[in-house]
Amino acid sequence: MRLSQLFTKTLREAPADETAKNAQFLIRGGFVFKNSAGIYSFLPLGWRVMQKIANIVREEMDALGGQEMFMPALVEKKYMEPTGRWSLDVGYFAKPKNEKESEFVLGWSHEEVLTSIAAKYISSYKDLSFSAYQIQTKFRHEARAKSGLLRGREFMMKDLYSFHASEDDLNKYYEKAAEAYHKVFERCGLKAIYTIAAGGVFTDKFTHEFQVVSDIGEDIIYLCDKCEYAENKEIAKLKDGDMCPKCSGKISEEKSIEVGNIFNNGTKYSEALGLNFTDEKGDKHPVVMGAYGIGISRLMATIVEIHNDGVGIIWPENVAPYKVHLISLDQNEEAGKIYNDLSKSGVEVLYDDREDKTAGEKFADADLIGCPIRIVVSKKTLEKDSVELKHRNEKYFKLIKLTEVLNAMQ
Amino acid sequence: MRLSQLFTKTLREAPADETAKNAQFLIRGGFVFKNSAGIYSFLPLGWRVMQKIANIVREEMDALGGQEMFMPALVEKKYMEPTGRWSLDVGYFAKPKNEKESEFVLGWSHEEVLTSIAAKYISSYKDLSFSAYQIQTKFRHEARAKSGLLRGREFMMKDLYSFHASEDDLNKYYEKAAEAYHKVFERCGLKAIYTIAAGGVFTDKFTHEFQVVSDIGEDIIYLCDKCEYAENKEIAKLKDGDMCPKCSGKISEEKSIEVGNIFNNGTKYSEALGLNFTDEKGDKHPVVMGAYGIGISRLMATIVEIHNDGVGIIWPENVAPYKVHLISLDQNEEAGKIYNDLSKSGVEVLYDDREDKTAGEKFADADLIGCPIRIVVSKKTLEKDSVELKHRNEKYFKLIKLTEVLNAMQ
Repeated sequence: MRLSQLFTKTLREAPADETAKNAQFLIRGGFVFKNSAGIYSFLPLGWRVMQKIANIVREEMDALGGQEMFMPALVEKKYMEPTGRWSLDVGYFAKPKNEKESEFVLGWSHEEVLTSIAAKYISSYKDLSFSAYQIQTKFRHEARAKSGLLRGREFMMKDLYSFHASEDDLNKYYEKAAEAYHKVFERCGLKAIYTIAAGGVFTDKFTHEFQVVSDIGEDIIYLCDKCEYAENKEIAKLKDGDMCPKCSGKISEEKSIEVGNIFNNGTKYSEALGLNFTDEKGDKHPVVMGAYGIGISRLMATIVEIHNDGVGIIWPENVAPYKVHLISLDQNEEAGKIYNDLSKSGVEVLYDDREDKTAGEKFADADLIGCPIRIVVSKKTLEKDSVELKHRNEKYFKLIKLTEVLNAMQ
Repeated sequence: MRLSQLFTKTLREAPADETAKNAQFLIRGGFVFKNSAGIYSFLPLGWRVMQKIANIVREEMDALGGQEMFMPALVEKKYMEPTGRWSLDVGYFAKPKNEKESEFVLGWSHEEVLTSIAAKYISSYKDLSFSAYQIQTKFRHEARAKSGLLRGREFMMKDLYSFHASEDDLNKYYEKAAEAYHKVFERCGLKAIYTIAAGGVFTDKFTHEFQVVSDIGEDIIYLCDKCEYAENKEIAKLKDGDMCPKCSGKISEEKSIEVGNIFNNGTKYSEALGLNFTDEKGDKHPVVMGAYGIGISRLMATIVEIHNDGVGIIWPENVAPYKVHLISLDQNEEAGKIYNDLSKSGVEVLYDDREDKTAGEKFADADLIGCPIRIVVSKKTLEKDSVELKHRNEKYFKLIKLTEVLNAMQ
């Protein structure tokens, strides 16, 4: 992509009410646009990052046997009433202008919808187990939408649901899902702590969260420095300085970001909505269910919170909008050639071909946007048949011969 | 994908209120699930088709220079009031349980949002032209949601918007967009007629629609049998049997499906929302805009309306959920081997490995689901070291040697 053609521009300042680093960098870099409190548009650079994160999640969910689908945002009353969640003040209720009562809530979670769909197809133990997921916009009415994209009113989420004939079978899947989640976060450049927590409006049982330690997080966890055992403050009886209940390590209190969660929902939804199966003996039982969420846009925000320096984002390569940020100075022809060659070889390049920007402005934009590799082509470098190559997370550049640029991308 | 693992099943009957063929076949085949009137879930098979259509659209929009992005569904009052579209009874209004007034309409079109975003970045003629698009759920309050997925209350749409310094420049882009649209429909196996029409709630100018002639369509067009000149009845002064105003051909009246539309919006939105640019002389002008829509879910429904026979769908290969529907009879091992070999070679295969279904049931499901190629492996075919290969749109099968199956996929 040529920067001269990208319709967004970097901005010197983010809106005054955006205090979170993730929102500041993402807005200033042209990744997102703030439409309303807690509501953002994903601009071309930001949408590329979102798609990369979504594809990592998709690959790991597919590997877990998840079948991708897509459920509606307009969730009718008939789905939410049987579980008692229609009356909750969590979502947005939707209606046409001239109707009195709302018959729809904007989906803030889809347990009820998928349970009802499954009831159409599942009748025997032979139909179990299975899991299905979607990557879709969710809506939650946050009184104070804050923390930038960490807590949106409208946000992108992956929600997977699993269906089992027994609690044992669910538990096995639950463990596999936890492993898949660790893979997702690792591929996104994050270290996530597996944490015991409460179930909120989803389940009465204990659940597990994946927590990334960061000052901006809204959660407090108690974390062992040795075995990484962790409890969410909601349920923890631990306090700072305690000895770990699992090993001899020391517990510390950390503010933290919840990037994913997994729930054993038991038969709460299947009983309320009549999702039953017949076992080998002909006896009827409610299906045992699990739910597994990852906030895709929250993940993007978390990556920015963790991977930045004072001047901009430092994207991990797997989720970077482009691998290379190519800067042309002195209007040389060689940069365009490198752009074409790299692009043809499948290397994703953001090419700063703008003629009305100074070198300083171009360098600042590259630091703000945060692609992993910066290449500078100028008269000075071309005198040595070379380019300057610098990694975003390193301090110094090195000279690379023009003939070696493609090899340096490996 | 193994059919034994797919959580959906084919159904003998669609809901009684679904009279449209597209909904009947899509529901019975396990492509979609009807959640509410005009509101559907896309099940794994249907979601694959949607993604294939979306990717065709994406490729053609990218080739047109469109920059992909993603705007919110919750569109705040401040965007829609300046254009007078806040007061329209087109969309769903959304609010939390305990708030009195709705401040949001669910996006039914995004001219205002993108115009406002563009106003942040565009100031000079040098910033023009550009175009941006999204593939996203749209919400429209249809009094009678009918015609199955042809007219949903919640549906998937691609909307592209273009921004220009002059009407001339817009016109050139408009022509290119029309060509790109023809490519999209052709790749989806549809013949679309370029038709002059009225602008509805979008613009006061004439617009162009892409119409696919079909009895189920809600539009009436007047179409020349010779030069394919067409007018929508809304604006047409023509009647059945008239002579074509462009050539000597004969005009006939056709019921028709609008699968896409393109609009010259002029400066309607840029004037209302303050999107201006400065020209080379330093004078200020409102930006000239175009809008270009394709209903992705409507396109899926249209393909089904056009490509079906009495017993099921006949997917064009580009948008088929899988290329091959592989049927194993008599529980042989060879079918599993073919499934693995084809999958490894990148051929998409839906493998009917179910052990509790008769040959008749399996053939009926293959016809209903409608993958382009059916392969049957049975004791009988294996006696001849062969499989039966039949194209969905042909009547007879042929025997293919086991060693030649992969070659037959070309």
